[in-house]
Amino acid sequence: MSDRAERLVGAVRDAGLDQFLVSDLTNVRYLCGFSGTNGACLVGPDSKIFLTDFRYTERAAAEISGWQVEIVSGEWLTGLAAFFEGQVGFEDDHLTVRTASKLKSASPEGVALVDAGGKVEGLRRIKEPEEIQKIAAAAKLTDVLYGEAVERGLIGRTEAEISAYVVGRMREEGAEPSFPPIIASGPNGASPHAEPGLRVVGKSELVTMDMGAILDGYCSDCTRTFATGVLEDRANEIYEVTLAANEKALKAVRAGAIASDVDAVARDLIAEAGYGENFGHGLGHGVGLEVHEAPRLGMRSNDVLAAGDVVTVEPGIYIGGFTGVRIEDMVVVGDEGVARNFASVTKTLTYVD
Amino acid sequence: MSDRAERLVGAVRDAGLDQFLVSDLTNVRYLCGFSGTNGACLVGPDSKIFLTDFRYTERAAAEISGWQVEIVSGEWLTGLAAFFEGQVGFEDDHLTVRTASKLKSASPEGVALVDAGGKVEGLRRIKEPEEIQKIAAAAKLTDVLYGEAVERGLIGRTEAEISAYVVGRMREEGAEPSFPPIIASGPNGASPHAEPGLRVVGKSELVTMDMGAILDGYCSDCTRTFATGVLEDRANEIYEVTLAANEKALKAVRAGAIASDVDAVARDLIAEAGYGENFGHGLGHGVGLEVHEAPRLGMRSNDVLAAGDVVTVEPGIYIGGFTGVRIEDMVVVGDEGVARNFASVTKTLTYVD
Repeated sequence: MSDRAERLVGAVRDAGLDQFLVSDLTNVRYLCGFSGTNGACLVGPDSKIFLTDFRYTERAAAEISGWQVEIVSGEWLTGLAAFFEGQVGFEDDHLTVRTASKLKSASPEGVALVDAGGKVEGLRRIKEPEEIQKIAAAAKLTDVLYGEAVERGLIGRTEAEISAYVVGRMREEGAEPSFPPIIASGPNGASPHAEPGLRVVGKSELVTMDMGAILDGYCSDCTRTFATGVLEDRANEIYEVTLAANEKALKAVRAGAIASDVDAVARDLIAEAGYGENFGHGLGHGVGLEVHEAPRLGMRSNDVLAAGDVVTVEPGIYIGGFTGVRIEDMVVVGDEGVARNFASVTKTLTYVD
Repeated sequence: MSDRAERLVGAVRDAGLDQFLVSDLTNVRYLCGFSGTNGACLVGPDSKIFLTDFRYTERAAAEISGWQVEIVSGEWLTGLAAFFEGQVGFEDDHLTVRTASKLKSASPEGVALVDAGGKVEGLRRIKEPEEIQKIAAAAKLTDVLYGEAVERGLIGRTEAEISAYVVGRMREEGAEPSFPPIIASGPNGASPHAEPGLRVVGKSELVTMDMGAILDGYCSDCTRTFATGVLEDRANEIYEVTLAANEKALKAVRAGAIASDVDAVARDLIAEAGYGENFGHGLGHGVGLEVHEAPRLGMRSNDVLAAGDVVTVEPGIYIGGFTGVRIEDMVVVGDEGVARNFASVTKTLTYVD
């Protein structure tokens, strides 16, 4: 972890900055390990300062080593600014207009604040082996819960009950959901972001389940769509098209690929099958300490995939008033292709009672 | 709900603005009822426009009435900016420096963006009767769960198990936790923001439970500290001092009171008892659609309480290496004092097995 701060110092120096203020809490956690709800890192060539408030004195002592720890009493932004020197980069993609304005007012004479966001996110993209292990553990838990949910059965249960079961089991295993699970049955599947409700899962319909766990700080994300019996032809068709799009896009994932090109592989296949209007979201996103992080796989994303990126590939087809399908794997990008696919749940259309 | 938009238009006109962009999702929900994860309201004297993307076409149709609904395809900020005219206020306390900068670049000729945050939060402070009812329902659920947790017993259970039980029961009742419950036993109680862990609750110690539910969009928040048997004198003492601070501060709550003065009532009492260094957080905060919203009750808060504010009063004493106590009620501010205290769980030190 200390290596992460060193790499950041390199990026700060390259940008001609004297210091860099890390205020986003996920970035703070990545750099120094602090998991509380108020803290910041101030990094320069000769100093690594972690700042928090009274409430986290004990947690900071327990979680952080190798940093100068400062407990700010009094007004937080004034306390931070007191440590600023020279050209101070800040995370313009996280600080609000108002907070940045207050920080500027509180800064000592001679300090200039410089928009410089994205530096820690850049470091976070390339996962270390220890991070891959943690993501794999979170993914494995999700796959186990897919198995349990299928074993318990879906028909006759409400979407909300299925979701509560999964979340309850995650907590029993020491995890949290990385987002509220989506359990979208029948016509509800037509909404990519449906919330589990009191609809009872019926026979012969599609059920999209999109869920992930946070375990030891790291997230997983996986979507499968199940059938609760023999389907109409059109439902079978959109399942097979979505699956083909998922598999073809996975083959396009490799270091150096442009994200929009990978997206296009799935999007073009779906469009050629006549469902171009029914895939209205991006193909995927990075996963790590956050369930949505860099890079972004979408029509307008210029991100270039790199070895060590962990990304999702999740095409979908959504037909209002009818139903929907989404199939999502989470993978590690490798030099020659997918280095590892975390999802072990079958993608062959599976019938569940 | 349409009345809310009308009140906002009044505030927008008073500020000399032509339009006001509401981008914070909680504020958006308050204004128009939309509960998805991407949407914005653009309000002017002659127009009420709601904007979202493809994914929420169906939800917007189901949830919103009385607004011109626009589905933005293509780049989101460019899509928003296309509707800007004249002096456009924006929520500088929510938009990041980077997003505001992009919005400025995307704005049509003649448009000026003006820092103007806090307007919707101002409206949100004073709860309507229907909102009070929803908060009361969320509070009642929390109180029922306190009763169940006490009935089940604490000794021999891990903090994490107690937390999982409460969260599971909330979900069964159609609610979500308004924040991850805090179950802090024995020495863990010395951390105001302790996370429930694998520590097993023992005999003759203090257990602080801080939890709340979100039901139908509205939050509750309540803290009680229980004893699992006869305590050391010092533990009894900090309980009684905290309780006295809670009760004295509640008597100072009324419309027109300055928040820092109410905070001082509790803080001075605790300091006079010799624990001034052990109460390191503010006295309380507003509660509504968010579990932390305006006003803020703290040493440096100039907020003036108003009739209809819903606020918490939650003094605490935390002694590192020993234990801690926090006692929190959530109340409606009235003209003459507390108009209603939502918490029905006794504050008399309660012994739980």
